[in-house]
Amino acid sequence: MTGFVSLVGAGPGDPELLTLRAARRLHDADLVLSDALVQTDLLDLAPRAQRFFVGKRAGRHSIEQDEIHRLMIRGAQRGQRVVRLKCGDPFVLGRGGEEALALEAAGIPYEVVPGVSSALAAPALAGIPVTHRGLASAFAVVSGHAASAYAPILDGIAPGSLTLVVMMGLRTRGELAAHLIARGWPATTPAAIVFGASHPDAMTWIGELASLGEASFETELPAVLVIGEVVGLADQLGFARADHLALADQIGRTS
Amino acid sequence: MTGFVSLVGAGPGDPELLTLRAARRLHDADLVLSDALVQTDLLDLAPRAQRFFVGKRAGRHSIEQDEIHRLMIRGAQRGQRVVRLKCGDPFVLGRGGEEALALEAAGIPYEVVPGVSSALAAPALAGIPVTHRGLASAFAVVSGHAASAYAPILDGIAPGSLTLVVMMGLRTRGELAAHLIARGWPATTPAAIVFGASHPDAMTWIGELASLGEASFETELPAVLVIGEVVGLADQLGFARADHLALADQIGRTS
Repeated sequence: MTGFVSLVGAGPGDPELLTLRAARRLHDADLVLSDALVQTDLLDLAPRAQRFFVGKRAGRHSIEQDEIHRLMIRGAQRGQRVVRLKCGDPFVLGRGGEEALALEAAGIPYEVVPGVSSALAAPALAGIPVTHRGLASAFAVVSGHAASAYAPILDGIAPGSLTLVVMMGLRTRGELAAHLIARGWPATTPAAIVFGASHPDAMTWIGELASLGEASFETELPAVLVIGEVVGLADQLGFARADHLALADQIGRTS
Repeated sequence: MTGFVSLVGAGPGDPELLTLRAARRLHDADLVLSDALVQTDLLDLAPRAQRFFVGKRAGRHSIEQDEIHRLMIRGAQRGQRVVRLKCGDPFVLGRGGEEALALEAAGIPYEVVPGVSSALAAPALAGIPVTHRGLASAFAVVSGHAASAYAPILDGIAPGSLTLVVMMGLRTRGELAAHLIARGWPATTPAAIVFGASHPDAMTWIGELASLGEASFETELPAVLVIGEVVGLADQLGFARADHLALADQIGRTS
C-alpha cells in the first residue's frame, strides 16, 4: 500500500484560518509532523494521528531537516497518510521546496496545500492592506533573520517604492531599520510590528522606522514587521478589534 | 438590529482552499457580493443568501466601486450579514483597503477574513516555491495591468535579486519582459505563466523571460506570471499533477 504526504500550510495560527482541504487532510492523517510554532489547537483536528513537533525551534523535540525528510518518507513507505504541517504557507520562507524535492527524489506521491501566509494575514488583521491605491501598488516579503540574507535584498529595492514585509525580523529590527535609513528610506516611514496575528492575544506596535529598534517587548509570539506608507491606515481600520470578531461570531450563532 | 460585513478572501478558486471561517461566513450570509472572477461553485456554500456579482470585469453585472460600498453598507444597515467575497486575499491588489475605509467611515462593524492569495498559491500549485535556499530568499508581488503602475516598481528592484510574481500581467507580459531585460534581467531568466491555479483545468507555461511575450494562449482563465530562478524547480516538483491530487482524495475517502 502506498502512503501519501501532504505539505500543508497551517495559516497564521487561528484554526479557523486553516483551509477546508487542510482540515480534511488533518482529519484523515495517520502521522502529523508539525512545525514547533504551529498552535497546538490545530493538532486537535487530527484525532487519529501520531503527532510530532519538528524543526529547530521546537522546545520538546529538536529534529533536523534531514530527519524531517526521513520521517515523512518512512511514514509514506509504511502506507501512512502523512501531514507535514507548516506555519503559514508551505512555500514562503519555510524550506517547503526542500521537503518537496526530498519526496520527489524518494518517489513518494505528495501534494502541496497552500495556506494563508502570515506575511499577508498579519498586516491584514492589524488593519494594514499591503497594497492600497495611492500608497503602494506592490509589496515584497523578506526574511530578516540575518543581515547576510536581508542586506542584498534590501539593497536591491529602491527606498519607499513598495511595502516591505519582514518575517523573522524581530531580533534584527534595529539594525534592519538602520540599514534601510542608511539606504535612503525616510526615518519617518510608518512601521508596524504585528505579534501573534490571529491569536487571541495578538497585538500591534505602530511607530516609525527610526523607532522600530527602540521599543522592547516581552512576548514569545511570532512577529511580522511591516514598513511603508500603508501602515498609516492601521489607525483608521479598526476591524481587527476583538469586539468586531466577537460580534461576527455572535451574529453567526444566533441565526 | 446591526448587520455586519465580512471582507472575505475566496482563495484562488478551488472551494477546498477557502478557510474554515470563510466557509462559515458564507453559510451564515444573508447577502453575498462576489467578485466576478470568483468561481460560481463557491456561492453554493451560501444557500440562504442573495448573491450578486460585482466589479468591473463582471460579465453579468458591472457595478462600480462606489456602488459596491453602497450595497455593503445598505445591507448591514438593514441588519444583514454581508459577505464581500474577493478573489485570493482581500488586501492583495484588490481594493479591499478602500472597502474597509468606506465601512469604517459609515460606522459599519466589519472584519477581514484573510484568504489564500493566488500570488502564492499559483506558483505553489505549479511546483514553484517563491523562496528556496540558494535561489531566492525574497519575493515581490506586483500588478502588471499597466506600464504606468509596474514600471516604477520594477525600476526599483535590482535585476534577479528576488522572485517576481506579477498579477494581472497576461496582456502586458511582452512589454513587461522587455522592460525587465532592458533593466538588466538576463533574457534567460526562467519564467512561468500559471493559468487557473487550483481550477480543474489549470495549466502552466514554462519558458524564459525573452519568450514570455511570444507564446499565445486561448484561455479565459486568470493568469499569474512568475519570474526568477525558482521557476526552474517546476520541472522537478511534479506534485501539481492531477493524479497526485486524485490519489490524495482517494486515500482520504477509503479510510
